[in-house]
Amino acid sequence: MSLLVVGSIALDTIKTPMGQVEECLGGSATYFACAASFFGPVRLVGVVGGDFPPEHLKLLGSRGIDTRGVEIVEGGKTFRWTAEYFQNMNDRQTLSVELNVLGDHLPRVPGDFGDSRCLFLANGPPATQSSVLDQAPAAEFVMCDTMDLWIRTEREGLDELLRRVQGLFLNAEEAVLLTEERNLIEAGLAIRELGPQVVIVKKGEHGSIIFSEDGITALPAYPAGRVRDPTGAGDVFAGGVMGYLAQAESRDGRAVKRAVAYGTVLASFIVEDFSLQPLLRTERSEVDRRTEEFIAMLRI
Amino acid sequence: MSLLVVGSIALDTIKTPMGQVEECLGGSATYFACAASFFGPVRLVGVVGGDFPPEHLKLLGSRGIDTRGVEIVEGGKTFRWTAEYFQNMNDRQTLSVELNVLGDHLPRVPGDFGDSRCLFLANGPPATQSSVLDQAPAAEFVMCDTMDLWIRTEREGLDELLRRVQGLFLNAEEAVLLTEERNLIEAGLAIRELGPQVVIVKKGEHGSIIFSEDGITALPAYPAGRVRDPTGAGDVFAGGVMGYLAQAESRDGRAVKRAVAYGTVLASFIVEDFSLQPLLRTERSEVDRRTEEFIAMLRI
Repeated sequence: MSLLVVGSIALDTIKTPMGQVEECLGGSATYFACAASFFGPVRLVGVVGGDFPPEHLKLLGSRGIDTRGVEIVEGGKTFRWTAEYFQNMNDRQTLSVELNVLGDHLPRVPGDFGDSRCLFLANGPPATQSSVLDQAPAAEFVMCDTMDLWIRTEREGLDELLRRVQGLFLNAEEAVLLTEERNLIEAGLAIRELGPQVVIVKKGEHGSIIFSEDGITALPAYPAGRVRDPTGAGDVFAGGVMGYLAQAESRDGRAVKRAVAYGTVLASFIVEDFSLQPLLRTERSEVDRRTEEFIAMLRI
Repeated sequence: MSLLVVGSIALDTIKTPMGQVEECLGGSATYFACAASFFGPVRLVGVVGGDFPPEHLKLLGSRGIDTRGVEIVEGGKTFRWTAEYFQNMNDRQTLSVELNVLGDHLPRVPGDFGDSRCLFLANGPPATQSSVLDQAPAAEFVMCDTMDLWIRTEREGLDELLRRVQGLFLNAEEAVLLTEERNLIEAGLAIRELGPQVVIVKKGEHGSIIFSEDGITALPAYPAGRVRDPTGAGDVFAGGVMGYLAQAESRDGRAVKRAVAYGTVLASFIVEDFSLQPLLRTERSEVDRRTEEFIAMLRI
């Protein structure tokens, strides 16, 4: 089933205790698309500046990602993000955000993409996410991401969006902020009342919790030793989940669990090195193998 | 197989955002023993003062816990612990610790208990834990707990103890402190090098990670909504694990996983109300039912 992702494409400068990279390919839609591309074709909508290296688009294309929806603003500069991770690899400090062409951009979904049946709205202003949804009339399974900023400042628009989507990814702090409920289980149940049938609370190294009509499922993270760069782990997780579900025969509780297993494993790969490198050098067979290992680990 | 636990017996005064209790039955050995008693008989060694309500000992006895190893110091006062939990229910502040008779107590294992083949050394000074081990010559499967204080101040004694035990329970912060390794997976592997074949890192609401000769297994917590009092959850978890293993036909990777599932579920019961109440009113069949539910949740 056709999968469309709309969100940011960035040039990231990242420092972690394990090293650093400058102006490498990043952005939530990019990470998501690369992860989802393990399962089938992906359509990408976003915006970059004239300074965006064309080889990045070629690279995405070589992975079955249709980049015709990536608008190039000649004379404009690509969104840039600079961050540094602390020793624990969980906390980070954003050193600079240059929105550039992303600033007041309203995504345009190309006519060819209008028949997409699965849609992921990566983190962005809720009004922008809603405008994308308006442009995807065939979308029957829509999941979105959000962040603390929108929960605090755009609550009305976010509530409206949540009534229109089938699923929501958010991290633990955001779940608490959104519901004012400190217990994550209570928070997840409360979020389902806001609209999304499937709520997936991301807890990073502590795994995730799925809330759906089949009940509540807590899953651990894949036990990963070496972490070099946690950037994009949440988007890769979402990309694995939706990439799998877009091709699955069902989206029942069992399928969602399997999708989360794939998302969990892809996230375990992405943190092993900087930028998209781990995904680019990993074969689908390795992803399958680690996923089977993860599933076996949980068999009691 | 006979299971002996040696550790503290306390009178707890606890305040949480959900209520409070005064001078109720507590202590790590007590919580452990009550959890383990779901699986078979338990032998308890500890010390209380003359002020210890005799009905507490009767209660423990009624659960198949042999309390002949509980020394009563007439004229002495029982160990008391007072704590308050913050809103998030994870962090707490210890308001007072009155060691009383526990202060310079050296546990004496009654001769009758010398043939115990499974032994749990609840948190205590490593030298005290080692002296118990000396009194349990038949113990072939020994697990222990520890805390940050001993890691900081009694490292030599702790290292000596770790070389003599088969398993260690500790929380995430303690694992990092013990190894100076921030990544929990690396920390757990490093702790196995110190002696224990089985290392179980407790992460509270985020579950646990098992390190054994069968590899690494991360498991979530049971997704529990209502939490009224987290006191004793770690000891109940350990009690479930060892209680199960003491009666199991094997202690291989599969058995340890199943044991941890039981520990996880018993911990989910204990947080539902104050003191030991939830365990006292729960039938083994309910524990089995929730454990099967937990196992099914993890089947992908």
